[in-house]
Amino acid sequence: MTPIRLGVLGLGRAFTLMVPTFTGDTRVKLVAAFDPREGARAAFEQTFGGTAQTSSEAVCADPAVEWVYVATPHQMHVDHVVTAARHGKHVLVEKPLALSLEDCTRMIETCEAAGTQLIVGHSHSFNAPVLLTRRLIASGRWGAVKLVHAMQYTDFLYRPRRPEELDTAQGGGVAYSQAAHQMDIIRLLAGGEVRSVRAFTGRWDAARPTEGAYTALLTFANGAVANATYNGYGHYDSDALMDGVGEMGRPKLPDAHRQTRARLRAVTNEAAEAALKAERNFGGSLYAPPAADAPDACQHFGPVLVSCERGDLRLTPRGVMVYDDQGQHFEPAQVPAVPRAEVIDELWAVGREGQAPLHGGRWSRATVEVCLALLESARADTDIMLRHQIPAPA
Amino acid sequence: MTPIRLGVLGLGRAFTLMVPTFTGDTRVKLVAAFDPREGARAAFEQTFGGTAQTSSEAVCADPAVEWVYVATPHQMHVDHVVTAARHGKHVLVEKPLALSLEDCTRMIETCEAAGTQLIVGHSHSFNAPVLLTRRLIASGRWGAVKLVHAMQYTDFLYRPRRPEELDTAQGGGVAYSQAAHQMDIIRLLAGGEVRSVRAFTGRWDAARPTEGAYTALLTFANGAVANATYNGYGHYDSDALMDGVGEMGRPKLPDAHRQTRARLRAVTNEAAEAALKAERNFGGSLYAPPAADAPDACQHFGPVLVSCERGDLRLTPRGVMVYDDQGQHFEPAQVPAVPRAEVIDELWAVGREGQAPLHGGRWSRATVEVCLALLESARADTDIMLRHQIPAPA
Repeated sequence: MTPIRLGVLGLGRAFTLMVPTFTGDTRVKLVAAFDPREGARAAFEQTFGGTAQTSSEAVCADPAVEWVYVATPHQMHVDHVVTAARHGKHVLVEKPLALSLEDCTRMIETCEAAGTQLIVGHSHSFNAPVLLTRRLIASGRWGAVKLVHAMQYTDFLYRPRRPEELDTAQGGGVAYSQAAHQMDIIRLLAGGEVRSVRAFTGRWDAARPTEGAYTALLTFANGAVANATYNGYGHYDSDALMDGVGEMGRPKLPDAHRQTRARLRAVTNEAAEAALKAERNFGGSLYAPPAADAPDACQHFGPVLVSCERGDLRLTPRGVMVYDDQGQHFEPAQVPAVPRAEVIDELWAVGREGQAPLHGGRWSRATVEVCLALLESARADTDIMLRHQIPAPA
Repeated sequence: MTPIRLGVLGLGRAFTLMVPTFTGDTRVKLVAAFDPREGARAAFEQTFGGTAQTSSEAVCADPAVEWVYVATPHQMHVDHVVTAARHGKHVLVEKPLALSLEDCTRMIETCEAAGTQLIVGHSHSFNAPVLLTRRLIASGRWGAVKLVHAMQYTDFLYRPRRPEELDTAQGGGVAYSQAAHQMDIIRLLAGGEVRSVRAFTGRWDAARPTEGAYTALLTFANGAVANATYNGYGHYDSDALMDGVGEMGRPKLPDAHRQTRARLRAVTNEAAEAALKAERNFGGSLYAPPAADAPDACQHFGPVLVSCERGDLRLTPRGVMVYDDQGQHFEPAQVPAVPRAEVIDELWAVGREGQAPLHGGRWSRATVEVCLALLESARADTDIMLRHQIPAPA
């Protein structure tokens, strides 16, 4: 089979994090891209040999493109997905699918009308240990899921940001960007159909006025409950609980969060901060190409502990530690030779083998609904009941 | 100053866990006790040299007794505290203070009318690292508390129990017994005045039909939020996150939870289970006297992480790990030479130095209110607003 030919919209942070995947996985080939930064377009042609187009529309219209990978800022996803679908292109779109349920629905319906596929990712719910945990749960050996406990303490709010990323109305803050990972993982493990969300959000830094933290309780139609916390103001780093392995599957310095804050303090204004972010992305002057060696651990999204009726499953960067009446044992995950190869696995299964996506449009709309419910529960100070949930695909 | 002369009601589990304290701390002297088990009474006279009385009333009436230590089953606390106070005795009563707010109020008012002191403990909120964290927070160096995150995974439900301990109506289950620790710790650290509680409880084992787990969100009058989870069905053991040190400050086998379940499986009926519990307590045939060596770590109640405006404080069995803009550093707690000496510190401060208790009646009623709210929130499926809260003493 020939590689899947991708056209890329947006060569920024999301794309940058996917470069090792696109470089290393021979099942995909980047054939076109658009980004407003001329340097990024030039670097794209030089690195991947594809065509740097001068507009998003041109990428979508390019007959060489089979799938469009939408990696533009959150608020642009809807227009770009709709454009791609109208050109008959299948779409891989970064999480979150969109910023409103209406936009999600429009994207889903447009793709269905056009007969094009829609996959939402990368997100950390693609990670091999998450998928392994799903299989272990599905085996029935430990009974039904009763409680999922997830936490993640990061330096999220102090990484360099564009101003819109610090404005919730424009999709900024952790409810959109980070809950999209954590809630997708939790939904995959707890059955998918969230019944209610009770949450509190934190806006603890007036200089960066968006939600940097949340803590939440979710109930599921099957009776499971989940407890989820994200703290993007973390001085503490929960990667300490993940064998010192960072989100990207590589060893992380215990001092990393302090360094992130110190770097940001050296930046004087919004424009300089946005430029710093841009320069660290693909095609920028501070861009560091991916390391040649493959990580020896999987990517992850912090500690997740699944309590079933007859055992507890703890996700690690290399697999799942199982605690049950026999004691404890380790179920290793297959660490992908290429980072995030799990995304290409799903892309290939859908694009070349005719399978239904795990991270499809309706699934991902339901995750967006949970993310929005985090904000709404905190605002309204009450439980939010959900209406767009679907079960996890078999 | 002469030792405080204690009379003990109940020589069961709670007392058994306090034996090392009473044996090792010269500031207290046990002068009388009552327990329905004759063997326990005989062992008391032999070990401590006090008088084994033949009723609770007799201990309370004994003129040699200054303070009565009420360590009877939960549901008996109210009668025993009231009896002691009416005899003009000060009271140290085990947590939870009582099973209803009405009983708590009756105990508080009876002691006030009698002019007797009331301290509620032991609970793990007495532990040196908790008190150290309180002092660190009070220093103001890291700003206000924003989020407290606490979790504890134990084998609680599979330890040998009397039937009443598996019946919520009689004070059984984790909401009374274990939340009394965790909620007291959280209240001490987050300011004390809980505004609302949202919780879900788990009854996952039909053979032991009480709450064995809960997960909860608390908000505080000062704006802080707390996330608390207790899972007494744990195959997983959260002591792994506490340097492998168990709740009692001693090294714990990774296999301990499996062993607890295996032991219980060998027990054939309720009566045998209750007998097993009794025989392991003070005066029983399986009783193990306290180890001669002092533990090299403090007692604890699982991972607790306090996020302040400018730093995170993580409780450990030996102190507090501080994460802030300077990096991380460790604030050691004074590991008490005698386990739970912190209880005697407070007893002495109140009984001999005229200080107000930290764990007084009104404070502890407020913790009972939180414990009851856990149950009520789960039952009513909504937030519970609290009305009996008081701030943490300065």
